[in-house]
Amino acid sequence: MAGETGQANGMLASGAAVGGGAGALRRLIDVAEGREPADVLFVNARIVDVYGHRVASGRVAVRDGAIASVLFDDRDADVPDCAAKEVVDCGGRYLAPGFIDGHLHIESSNIRPAEYARMALTRGTTTAVADCHEIANVCGLDGLSFMIADARRAPLDIKFMMPSCVPALPDEQAGASISAADMRAYIEGHPGEIFGLGEMMNMPGVYGADGETLERIAVAAATTSGQVDGHAPLAKGHDLNAYAAAGIIADHECTGPAEALDKLSRGMYIMLREGTCSHDLAQLAPLVLEDPARARRCCLATDDRAPSDALGTGMIDNACRMAIEAGIDAVTAISMGTLSTAECFGFDHGMPSPQERRGAIAPGKRADMLLLDDLTFQRPPARVYVAGRLVAADGAFVGEVEPANEEVERLEGLLRGSVRLPRLSKELFSYPFEPGTPAIDVVPGNAATGIVEPEDADGLRRIVLIERHGRGAAAQDAGADGDGPAGTGLVGKHVGRGWVRGYTISGGAIASTIGHDSHNVCVVGDNPSDMLAAVEAVGQGGFVLVRGGEVVARIGLPLGGLMSDLPAEEVARQHDHFMAEARSMGIEPPLDPIMGMIFLPLPVIPVLRIRPEGLFDALHFRFV
Amino acid sequence: MAGETGQANGMLASGAAVGGGAGALRRLIDVAEGREPADVLFVNARIVDVYGHRVASGRVAVRDGAIASVLFDDRDADVPDCAAKEVVDCGGRYLAPGFIDGHLHIESSNIRPAEYARMALTRGTTTAVADCHEIANVCGLDGLSFMIADARRAPLDIKFMMPSCVPALPDEQAGASISAADMRAYIEGHPGEIFGLGEMMNMPGVYGADGETLERIAVAAATTSGQVDGHAPLAKGHDLNAYAAAGIIADHECTGPAEALDKLSRGMYIMLREGTCSHDLAQLAPLVLEDPARARRCCLATDDRAPSDALGTGMIDNACRMAIEAGIDAVTAISMGTLSTAECFGFDHGMPSPQERRGAIAPGKRADMLLLDDLTFQRPPARVYVAGRLVAADGAFVGEVEPANEEVERLEGLLRGSVRLPRLSKELFSYPFEPGTPAIDVVPGNAATGIVEPEDADGLRRIVLIERHGRGAAAQDAGADGDGPAGTGLVGKHVGRGWVRGYTISGGAIASTIGHDSHNVCVVGDNPSDMLAAVEAVGQGGFVLVRGGEVVARIGLPLGGLMSDLPAEEVARQHDHFMAEARSMGIEPPLDPIMGMIFLPLPVIPVLRIRPEGLFDALHFRFV
Repeated sequence: MAGETGQANGMLASGAAVGGGAGALRRLIDVAEGREPADVLFVNARIVDVYGHRVASGRVAVRDGAIASVLFDDRDADVPDCAAKEVVDCGGRYLAPGFIDGHLHIESSNIRPAEYARMALTRGTTTAVADCHEIANVCGLDGLSFMIADARRAPLDIKFMMPSCVPALPDEQAGASISAADMRAYIEGHPGEIFGLGEMMNMPGVYGADGETLERIAVAAATTSGQVDGHAPLAKGHDLNAYAAAGIIADHECTGPAEALDKLSRGMYIMLREGTCSHDLAQLAPLVLEDPARARRCCLATDDRAPSDALGTGMIDNACRMAIEAGIDAVTAISMGTLSTAECFGFDHGMPSPQERRGAIAPGKRADMLLLDDLTFQRPPARVYVAGRLVAADGAFVGEVEPANEEVERLEGLLRGSVRLPRLSKELFSYPFEPGTPAIDVVPGNAATGIVEPEDADGLRRIVLIERHGRGAAAQDAGADGDGPAGTGLVGKHVGRGWVRGYTISGGAIASTIGHDSHNVCVVGDNPSDMLAAVEAVGQGGFVLVRGGEVVARIGLPLGGLMSDLPAEEVARQHDHFMAEARSMGIEPPLDPIMGMIFLPLPVIPVLRIRPEGLFDALHFRFV
Repeated sequence: MAGETGQANGMLASGAAVGGGAGALRRLIDVAEGREPADVLFVNARIVDVYGHRVASGRVAVRDGAIASVLFDDRDADVPDCAAKEVVDCGGRYLAPGFIDGHLHIESSNIRPAEYARMALTRGTTTAVADCHEIANVCGLDGLSFMIADARRAPLDIKFMMPSCVPALPDEQAGASISAADMRAYIEGHPGEIFGLGEMMNMPGVYGADGETLERIAVAAATTSGQVDGHAPLAKGHDLNAYAAAGIIADHECTGPAEALDKLSRGMYIMLREGTCSHDLAQLAPLVLEDPARARRCCLATDDRAPSDALGTGMIDNACRMAIEAGIDAVTAISMGTLSTAECFGFDHGMPSPQERRGAIAPGKRADMLLLDDLTFQRPPARVYVAGRLVAADGAFVGEVEPANEEVERLEGLLRGSVRLPRLSKELFSYPFEPGTPAIDVVPGNAATGIVEPEDADGLRRIVLIERHGRGAAAQDAGADGDGPAGTGLVGKHVGRGWVRGYTISGGAIASTIGHDSHNVCVVGDNPSDMLAAVEAVGQGGFVLVRGGEVVARIGLPLGGLMSDLPAEEVARQHDHFMAEARSMGIEPPLDPIMGMIFLPLPVIPVLRIRPEGLFDALHFRFV
């Protein structure tokens, strides 16, 4: 067969051959025409047709990981089926496209990519557009390389974006810094591995048309999709126009329909986010309910789901369930989680290979499909197929994850040992409250915070952020503490201290090596002793809960201080235990003890945040 | 200003500087933020927001040909306007995106590209996706080069597709042949000039996974959009799946909603066509009326409009008018003529330069806009802006067309002298009718035909197709006629003869150097003398009407036998005269005397067609 190049291209981690090139296209056509057998033929399916916006009974033939043929019973009843190596009788159940999660950070699920894949596939996510700026903030581009290498072990197709803002702000005390030149060199050195430019969080950089920022945006042209993802909470007016004019295609930070319409009308795709920390979907549903035509530019994203939530209620399937419960019709909801996201990133029809096109059940698209008992998304998909191969059934992963190879192990080694804290003392945490001082006002279920200036410390807790990438330790070694207690010489430089309202931990402290996006150690507590104990207990990474001087719960995160090396289910169990202990210490729903803390250092989300230099007004980009 | 490259990129034919690169992006942002003046500020506009699917009052700022800012009165009332060199008060009228004509052939409007641009702009078409396979069938890639060079003279942005099927079928007697290798060499030799692969009419080649056909499809990856446009009348079942599996993105040949839904559900964009010959829009409107969500994958196309129709009732604006009259809401209709087509070809957000992004009024998009008195499209747009510059007002072109330069003149020279007919005699046209012989059944207003086998010649006319690219003349010079009358030795080889029902010309004959797609000379008449006279009168190209031995009407087409070198208005006048004369000869509406004839040779549209070898069944791809 002249021009046969299929075998050379693409190999699923699970071992399924996914051919490319002219030979594969010829085979696909031959199957469509019935001249060649399909690998798998799905019969008796109720196909969720996101193009026709309907459900229609029919059959789907798959070859080489792509859909060769879709035949609808009402129009193609007399068209014979092709032969097939395997026939799947769908028994009248629904066959929907695999979900595309439009924006997420794998690290924020606290598990490594291969584990994330295993988990996400059980909930029907077959493509994930992942920005790895968390690990990149700790370990730089080596962190990104680890994510890419580890992801190859599992059959989830993770599209990796180049982190655009490492560190999140130029003066952030992160573990690495990635310039436009660094990005370009990496992309050119890793052809086909970088899908686009990750969320452009440096909004002032865009508004100010900063040269380095515009160079980073220009770098996107060298990626597979050529796209720049966005992040523009509360942007409006002049700033929103500047941001959209820069060609940034999407925003996942909308919290209300008016804000979302502002952005939608400026040409940005709106990602309706339903995560563990940010629950925006119900608030945003009116955008689509008011006019379903807007769904074409609305996508679904998790950004992000903890394993306990993901395994419990789902990921994009959970977002679909909520959208349907909000009154959006099921096919529209599914189309937002599939076709709209595919169109946003240009892989509905923008890619030359059938194995790269996706977002619908149609010929010439990747055969990522979900078999569903109904369209309520109350349960995990009955079956999940990636490139035509069964990978999950009724919430259980049944695909293959390859063992870590030498390259993965080498990169993993670089991620361990990332926590380099200065020496600390109880005195560091024993600062007095000053009436009228600005304090962070936590908004449960939302990454955004408010600002309060209370007259007394009622309901306030201490919050301390400690640089952990070695700067503080080096300054200390150079004598920064002078004769004072350990760490106190770093205050305002590498240790930020303040107060927080609404984070109601009592009788102890919580500490974390995750603190977006620079991932310095954040600790909140109601007494200095437990705060010190919690920080000292984080070791090489993790969440720690200390009560009365004892560690009562821990989730170890040895990979960069961000990710566990354990299975998702074990992390979920640790998380459940951690949550139960935290609840017993006065942290009441809807506040999530972990999510409610780890975003407090993020300097690009309004309003008041904690940084190693102290409290920071993220709306006006200044320390207070 | 470091990184300033704007002046080096892009120059509108009208002389408007359209900057690209980092410098232009910086300026765009600076205007959005109010730090720099806009070139033009449109105020007091009712903006047609195709993303938000609404009309909302506001202001639009333009710089360097792109939209820098859109401010909506209800949300941005307190946002001050930027300074502007020019302010346009829209007086409360509508501001809509410029139309994108999704599929057309400039040659089929019988005018050259610069003239086409002038005409199309008056009707609000600001981008045209043009397949030049007509001239390519006559003059090969030189013909394409002429079209590109001539188009540069005028401010319409014409995106040229590489003709994929020249000749339309491998054994067609056209004036040129373009292989996959030819295409690739041309595309690589003309970077940025070829937008995609033009309509893939070789349906059997796709169904059969023919090697050369698949190579042509692969060539598309080297074009700007990377896309392959389609053409698949009546495709269904296995064949439709094969066609869609090949990654072909669109179809403009649907004639009913069921056929359209078949294709839509296979992932193809549906171009609702409303042309001079093919009037599909009213028939297809139910596809969208039944479920407006489908509009996201429905586009508008003319394919094609004669100048008389274009200047009289419009182009895409006419399609919008008809869609609205069919019950589709105006914003949806406009979105099908703008955003959907942009998404189809990847230039809503798939292009790195703001000057290339289009299809909506939004920041970072090309400032192609229409000022409309209302949303009925009963009249031409009140004002048409291309890249922020006024080019048409109330149906009159007010932009600039540059004179033809030396390169245009050189290429134009190659197009003249394309008609090389054999010697002919009256006897050639004097063939007898045989009862039961298959005859072409014309379907007025539709390019498709039927087949009839009449017992007598009542209502039939003679139709003859004469090869005109020199093959017949050469065969004749080599003695093909023997001792017979001139031309009779070519019958069945270079002269096809037959009968047609429904083309009711009486007392004369009509001849044309346009006969899709090989553009041999087609003549229809009710007597041999006038048929001979008509063919002899075509000279170096044109439509000719002969009555009683006299030429009573003519439209000269000296450029390749396809295009006039006169202004659109003059061609329209000639056309009106031609039509009046034809009507006086018994050709009644809805049959169009020209459009009703020139598609009869097209071998890729069902059912019965005329070719130089005789009558051809285009459904079963065989001569009858």
